This record gives sequence, structure tokens and C-alpha cells, in this order.
Amino acid sequence: MPLTLEERAPLLASLSGWSTVDDRDAIHKRFTFADFNAAFAFMTRVALAAEKADHHPEWFNVYNRVEVTLSTHDANGLTRRDTDLAAFMDRAAASLAKA
Amino acid sequence: MPLTLEERAPLLASLSGWSTVDDRDAIHKRFTFADFNAAFAFMTRVALAAEKADHHPEWFNVYNRVEVTLSTHDANGLTRRDTDLAAFMDRAAASLAKA
Repeated sequence: MPLTLEERAPLLASLSGWSTVDDRDAIHKRFTFADFNAAFAFMTRVALAAEKADHHPEWFNVYNRVEVTLSTHDANGLTRRDTDLAAFMDRAAASLAKA
Repeated sequence: MPLTLEERAPLLASLSGWSTVDDRDAIHKRFTFADFNAAFAFMTRVALAAEKADHHPEWFNVYNRVEVTLSTHDANGLTRRDTDLAAFMDRAAASLAKA
């Protein structure tokens, strides 16, 4: 079940740089890294966590940029699984050199 | 310098399932795998080859699907580097279980 308005406010406030998406109950963030090596290192860390949680991102990469959209298809909206993955991504990105 | 029409015909004919892109001198293919594990295994093999060649894809992934667009930004069009990377992707995908 998607997060209620009351539930999502503090969860979204705890994230950094994520925004809501027009026309979908989803969140989006653009990550920028030093180069492709760092961007793909980030994607690899996230892929392992996503697979473990059986909850996968929608993401686009070109060179040092990774554009991520998170939503829970089964629930047809934003859930705690998305905000958990978003928080993991923020931590993973912080551990890698930024552009 | 982008490939000439004479150069690109045999190169594109040697690829499998790639199509040209509207409004850009680029090629596109949708790869589908058994699951996220296989899709990301494909992406990892391609990432290593792309980094080695210093020629990177534009790609989108959600679960078992990987959408790839190849073009050479420096040359403002399709080059031999793109067709080489496309051929590598075809071989890498063939080595992984399909959906």
C-alpha cells in the first residue's frame, strides 16, 4: 500500500535531493559522480542492495550521471521500500567521490 | 567523424536487433533478460568493456530490461566505436540466459 501523506512527510524530509515526479507516485534524483568508473561503482553497490531487498530501481546512466526513479509497481505508488532504497543510495553516493 | 552511408550499411547489417533513432544519429536496442540479476550481469560486462574502450553507452534499466542508445558525442554521430560496442553487447547478451 502506498505511503499516506502523514507517513511520507518525515521519510521524504530525511532524504537529500529527491523530488516527486509529475504524473506518477514516485521520487526522482539525479546523481553526478567524478566519472563513469565512480557512477558504475555506485550502480553496482545499489544493484546488490536492490537484489537483496528484491526491490529494483528504474535508472538511466550516461557517463558520470545516474538518473533514478523509485516507485513500487506492486503497490502502484511510493512505499517504505522506496524511501529505504533512496536512503541507501544517498549513503552509497556519499561514499564515492563526487564530480 | 561519423560513419558514411557506405561504411555503416555492412556494420549495421552485422548487428542483431538494433534500430536507428529518430532525430539523432544513433542506434538503439532493447535487451531483455531472465531477471534483474542477469540484466545487471550484462551491464557489468558491458561497463568493463566500455571503460576499457573509453566509450560509454546511454542506457536505462528497469528489472530485467536494458534499453541502450549508442552514439559518439565527440563525433556528433554514429562511429565505428558504437558498432564495436554494439557487437560486444550482442555477444555479452548471448552469453546470458534470456527471458
